[in-house]
Amino acid sequence: MEACVAASEPVIKVAALCGSPRKASFHRGLITSAIQLCRESIKGMYIEYVDIEPLPFMNPDLEAGGTFPPVVEAFRQKILEADSILFASPEYNCSVTPLLKNAIDWATRPPSVLADKSVAIISTGALGGRSAQLHLRQIGIYDLHFINKPEFALNTFDPPRKFDSDGNLIDPEAKEKLKEVLLSLQTLTLRLNRNMY
Amino acid sequence: MEACVAASEPVIKVAALCGSPRKASFHRGLITSAIQLCRESIKGMYIEYVDIEPLPFMNPDLEAGGTFPPVVEAFRQKILEADSILFASPEYNCSVTPLLKNAIDWATRPPSVLADKSVAIISTGALGGRSAQLHLRQIGIYDLHFINKPEFALNTFDPPRKFDSDGNLIDPEAKEKLKEVLLSLQTLTLRLNRNMY
Amino acid sequence: MEACVAASEPVIKVAALCGSPRKASFHRGLITSAIQLCRESIKGMYIEYVDIEPLPFMNPDLEAGGTFPPVVEAFRQKILEADSILFASPEYNCSVTPLLKNAIDWATRPPSVLADKSVAIISTGALGGRSAQLHLRQIGIYDLHFINKPEFALNTFDPPRKFDSDGNLIDPEAKEKLKEVLLSLQTLTLRLNRNMY
Amino acid sequence: MEACVAASEPVIKVAALCGSPRKASFHRGLITSAIQLCRESIKGMYIEYVDIEPLPFMNPDLEAGGTFPPVVEAFRQKILEADSILFASPEYNCSVTPLLKNAIDWATRPPSVLADKSVAIISTGALGGRSAQLHLRQIGIYDLHFINKPEFALNTFDPPRKFDSDGNLIDPEAKEKLKEVLLSLQTLTLRLNRNMY
Repeated sequence: MEACVAASEPVIKVAALCGSPRKASFHRGLITSAIQLCRESIKGMYIEYVDIEPLPFMNPDLEAGGTFPPVVEAFRQKILEADSILFASPEYNCSVTPLLKNAIDWATRPPSVLADKSVAIISTGALGGRSAQLHLRQIGIYDLHFINKPEFALNTFDPPRKFDSDGNLIDPEAKEKLKEVLLSLQTLTLRLNRNMY
Repeated sequence: MEACVAASEPVIKVAALCGSPRKASFHRGLITSAIQLCRESIKGMYIEYVDIEPLPFMNPDLEAGGTFPPVVEAFRQKILEADSILFASPEYNCSVTPLLKNAIDWATRPPSVLADKSVAIISTGALGGRSAQLHLRQIGIYDLHFINKPEFALNTFDPPRKFDSDGNLIDPEAKEKLKEVLLSLQTLTLRLNRNMY
Repeated sequence: MEACVAASEPVIKVAALCGSPRKASFHRGLITSAIQLCRESIKGMYIEYVDIEPLPFMNPDLEAGGTFPPVVEAFRQKILEADSILFASPEYNCSVTPLLKNAIDWATRPPSVLADKSVAIISTGALGGRSAQLHLRQIGIYDLHFINKPEFALNTFDPPRKFDSDGNLIDPEAKEKLKEVLLSLQTLTLRLNRNMY
Repeated sequence: MEACVAASEPVIKVAALCGSPRKASFHRGLITSAIQLCRESIKGMYIEYVDIEPLPFMNPDLEAGGTFPPVVEAFRQKILEADSILFASPEYNCSVTPLLKNAIDWATRPPSVLADKSVAIISTGALGGRSAQLHLRQIGIYDLHFINKPEFALNTFDPPRKFDSDGNLIDPEAKEKLKEVLLSLQTLTLRLNRNMY
């Protein structure tokens, strides 16, 4: 909440993590849309993209002397500063990507920087990516508060096209639902942290 | 709850559901202990046991004319009146019992009476019953807010004995953890419903 | 395999269980289609519908004296006689129905009559019912051999209509995939039980 | 099966993957024990440790021109040559490690080199690592045939000590169970591939 300009205007800071390693990923497109939607039409919430690709494979052996590698430390600091998390999670083999699981596993190394944060998941793909979301909910049982509704699991295989050729979300219905997800995340975050304000 | 002083003294009402159909169930013993611990040492919270055995198998065909069978209606009313839920959930085949799933499925028929409630799960058995807990967390994604910690998954097979011959929880460490679960449930419920008071 | 007339003509016996309690269930329609497809175009396999609705809620207390209630005993005998299982499983709250879980829990009471059987799951609904299928795969870890492909998770909400007004599967593509599921079940069953023949 | 000396002496080749990135990992110890047990007392099966640490994070963008990076190609070749897989899987946040998920995701890139292989999972840790095993079973639904029993989920926190200070499995009961897992894997592999011999 360091960013808030005045006591009366708290801003919820959301860290957005992209589970896809691909450059032209639809999930990156979902985060871009979320950032834009948030800026344009949601007051009191700010989304920042946090890059998880520089992280090495999580290995407790790398925590020699009780410190994390610098790149891990920087990542953990960004998560720590966030009030909420937005996971854009593809589904690989009915579960999350190694890339995203890796970021979560680094974040939860004691002391967990994910502890007690509110979370929303957005995904797209065959069957909408829901199986990955279900794994995420089990992965986060000790730390995270997930929003209940709406569920954003966008089936990209059904017409009409949901993304343009640059990977931008163009489907109006999907955009509206994405906005509802963000509003739901805002509401849950505020309920959990009433004392912040 | 810190602010409320007198006549307004709100009490969090917890509905306790036992997933075991057995008479001498350890899970029934866990609920009995929870009720007692709550009465003795937790202010502002009250646990009521809600019997789910009289419910018929969940079948939308039984909702003729937009009404539920009387026994279902009575159950749903009890859930609706509760602020939080306590599931005592055994593990059958790595998942919840049909009895408990049945109660949840009736409760979530629209309009869901579980919507937006806080929840804690307690279980015991081989490997502590954690697999059943993980299924419960997926079953409740649209409605429930689960506490994160502590996890109460009591391994009954390791010595020392955790229950006496009447099914009462006698292990002091387990009792302490059970109390922490209840306090955690109370905290989460208060955070989510600050406006109640 | 009692039905086989000659050593050279073994017939795989499949027990089909419907997880839906509804009369006009699409899942009942899927089983009807499977039975018909099997009769018409798959040699060496026979599907029998096994009714699971008469079963009481699974309760070990009902096994007094080491025997099961007659209706349970009859059900277990039917499962025991089958070589394979076909689950038609709706998805309620991201999991299986209490009705289906109940049948499985009775079947796996020691000695498990599901032990070592081959299985296929077919489902339909929002997001195809895949989450229920994923739970089933965890529920069956100690007993069942699931086919890997194809996955039959039919999205009924996308056009065109997959079922007629009587609940019969009418979509040619879905019927073709259903047949592939049955062939895959046949193949796996034969591989696992080469010694039968 | 290239290694078999004579048509009458087929040898099942098992690829053992260690999900732990740690040097002094108990899971590495489990694999060492499995290799030794297999060599000493199981005829017709050979376990080879396959290192998955050199693999980069799975990224379809790296498959430019339809080829895999050399290190991935070498890994995939090793998996392809194996008849069965042995996963030694720790549990991080109720799921598999990023390291192991990464190897699986590379292996299943089309054409999947895991397709139709038999698998056993061994794990150790709090609650035995069973939650990681349950995720693995969902991750492998399109490719793998898992053994049903016994379940090897070794609770390291209960006395007596299961490993010596060098990470070797020393508990006789655990060793016996590990051997049963390997025998079960051998049996399932033979049943599925009767035509190999």
